[in-house]
Amino acid sequence: MKRTGTTVILSGIIFILAAALVGTLLYIRNQPAPTRGVAPITEIDRYEADSSIWGENFPNQFTTYQLTGSNQARTAYGGSEAFSKLEDDPRLVTLFAGYGFSKDYNEERGHAQSLTDVRETMRVNETTPGTCYSCKSSNNPGLWSEMGMAQFDKALFMELGAHISNPIGCANCHDPETMQLIVTNPALEEALLAQGKDWRTFTRQEMRTVVCANCHVEYYFAGEGKYLVFPWEDGTRIENISAYYAELGFKDWEHPQSGAPMIKMQHPEYEFFTADSTHYKAGVACADCHMPYTRDGAAKFSTHNVQSPLLNAEVACGACHAEVGYVTGRVATIQAQVRETMDASEEAIVAAIQSIQAAAELASVEADLLAEARDLHREAQLRWDFIAAENSMGFHNPEEALRILASATDLARQAQLKAVLAAGTGAVIQASGQ
Amino acid sequence: MKRTGTTVILSGIIFILAAALVGTLLYIRNQPAPTRGVAPITEIDRYEADSSIWGENFPNQFTTYQLTGSNQARTAYGGSEAFSKLEDDPRLVTLFAGYGFSKDYNEERGHAQSLTDVRETMRVNETTPGTCYSCKSSNNPGLWSEMGMAQFDKALFMELGAHISNPIGCANCHDPETMQLIVTNPALEEALLAQGKDWRTFTRQEMRTVVCANCHVEYYFAGEGKYLVFPWEDGTRIENISAYYAELGFKDWEHPQSGAPMIKMQHPEYEFFTADSTHYKAGVACADCHMPYTRDGAAKFSTHNVQSPLLNAEVACGACHAEVGYVTGRVATIQAQVRETMDASEEAIVAAIQSIQAAAELASVEADLLAEARDLHREAQLRWDFIAAENSMGFHNPEEALRILASATDLARQAQLKAVLAAGTGAVIQASGQ
Repeated sequence: MKRTGTTVILSGIIFILAAALVGTLLYIRNQPAPTRGVAPITEIDRYEADSSIWGENFPNQFTTYQLTGSNQARTAYGGSEAFSKLEDDPRLVTLFAGYGFSKDYNEERGHAQSLTDVRETMRVNETTPGTCYSCKSSNNPGLWSEMGMAQFDKALFMELGAHISNPIGCANCHDPETMQLIVTNPALEEALLAQGKDWRTFTRQEMRTVVCANCHVEYYFAGEGKYLVFPWEDGTRIENISAYYAELGFKDWEHPQSGAPMIKMQHPEYEFFTADSTHYKAGVACADCHMPYTRDGAAKFSTHNVQSPLLNAEVACGACHAEVGYVTGRVATIQAQVRETMDASEEAIVAAIQSIQAAAELASVEADLLAEARDLHREAQLRWDFIAAENSMGFHNPEEALRILASATDLARQAQLKAVLAAGTGAVIQASGQ
Repeated sequence: MKRTGTTVILSGIIFILAAALVGTLLYIRNQPAPTRGVAPITEIDRYEADSSIWGENFPNQFTTYQLTGSNQARTAYGGSEAFSKLEDDPRLVTLFAGYGFSKDYNEERGHAQSLTDVRETMRVNETTPGTCYSCKSSNNPGLWSEMGMAQFDKALFMELGAHISNPIGCANCHDPETMQLIVTNPALEEALLAQGKDWRTFTRQEMRTVVCANCHVEYYFAGEGKYLVFPWEDGTRIENISAYYAELGFKDWEHPQSGAPMIKMQHPEYEFFTADSTHYKAGVACADCHMPYTRDGAAKFSTHNVQSPLLNAEVACGACHAEVGYVTGRVATIQAQVRETMDASEEAIVAAIQSIQAAAELASVEADLLAEARDLHREAQLRWDFIAAENSMGFHNPEEALRILASATDLARQAQLKAVLAAGTGAVIQASGQ
């Protein structure tokens, strides 16, 4: 009996200890990720632009972020090395003739190099507006709050630069008090509101995509004040964006060879990925692949070494996909299909430009048809550029990429045909080598 | 001690019994599916054409097969109802002008209706060769063995019909002794050999795709004897097939409006699916989706009610995908993108046909350019038809579908342009409504 009594008491103690341990572990596990195991050491100011100060509290996030300042790696079609896209594909010189991108167009490097890179690009000159800093610095949230976005945009790039000393960093996406993800770019907030959306009602998983839209979007500079606007009022599909610009009568520049009023697409990753892509529809956020969860000892955190998942496929793809080799094989196949189809679009647009130029030189040219040809050139090129400027060689949304490129080629060939009709003779095209 | 001895003996007995049970269960599990739990009742002859006799031994397979004789269901773009494709999409009348498919072109119905349907189509007449029965009857394996494929093909359809009384059935894919999957169509065996492949070395999972290629392929009738050939010698991609036909100087018919030597694509599901599609690369076979495993009490068998997986998505897609609603949503999105892109191809090809026709009517037409335009028409249309004739509205291989359609539209617009150049005046196109 005595032995049984001891056993009961010991079992009771073991049970209580085990329950306490489980409870404690569950408590730790349920703590919000950023503060887990890290007591705040430093108080962070409301618009603190210096990421290294945030880094005192969040060394894992900061150290991985720092890697974006030095990483230089190429993937099959992109990566984080600043190679010249113009050397890589000389057709771009014709496609962007008359615009800065025909002179200097490099692949983006990492977040921490954004400031260096924008200051070095030859596209910047003494008339460049402050708006061009919108996506380049963690000083922005503070400046936008202080001077308002209208003043920020109106300032000259060269002058505004005195107030800007940090590249993209923590303050561009986080609230320093709660560390929650927030929209900081007023243009994004306004563009969402124009669609009746309030980001403050979004889920955390939605925010893990939306904060990327602070920058990874198509935009334009409205009016004399070069006010930053995302053209989303009619929707974020390429057809909606094209219709929006047409209604507005907006152009980024006029193509000197074709005479068409052109639109340069920027980096519409957000619009393209959210256009019913398979990953987006499956609930995957940008951060899931580009900032996958990783471990430092017991701490689990989202790496802030934002880069191509192809450079980290075991972790980035492996979080969901069992066979990473199969998955990277799919990426290679799809990107090759998109590249091939994009090449055909570029050839068609270059042919259209040459034909329109040849037709326009004729005194007898039919003006109405020539105008139609120019409009078709614009429409073809903005569709092609939506995919070409987007940084995934179509992988963010493969079927959508191919659908849009098919349409771009179709429109470009129709532009070429209209130019011939405008010239009233096939000689135009023969002269342009067709 | 005695008690311990008894325990040891009893434990030994339990262990032996458990091991025996496990062994027996493993043995049962490893038996080939068809014979599991079904003692052969009927001896099946070597080339038994009557599927109901096979059905005495395999009631589940036969009963589900019989459903293909009565099922009539439409999906968004296909299904098993014999609706008229020409009424559905009147552009096909222009595209197939001068060929039987412009007069009668219906959606396929189920396997058990193959014989009725081929005998009722208005494409059959008194000169139709026996070759047209190649994919319509389970009498074929016996006839091919008896008379050889050359004689079978050479016979007239009307005469050969006397020996043919069964629709597609068991004998088209199974060895009656072992029930293993076999290639029965000599044309498939020859086409594989031309690529250095021997189906006898294929795995069972490979056979679950390859037997479908007994019929679901592109083919042509070679020479006077109308010998059945699959054009795979250079490979099974559309570019390979196009090159093969070009080398051969082969045409199915001449388009009466454009004068181009045309190729009609049949139903190249096998070539299209195996061109690096995501499902194929993941190891999925045709039968996995179109004949998913199902249960009748304790018996698990592959349903022989071969149909669109969309008509049975919970079972067909649900075997691998947890969220069937997500998956069918993907199918709908992708098929809409392919249909839209296919529409654009059709419009471009019709425009090319009209332009070539108008140009050819001019006495002053430039013959070389006209010939180039015709060649482009042929190349555009065979690419488009590779996707249009394939029964999945692109879903078997979405990116490949869109890649090919983009190219078809590009070629068609180039054909139209060449026609204008051949005419030497834009008036040609204006006349055709452009």
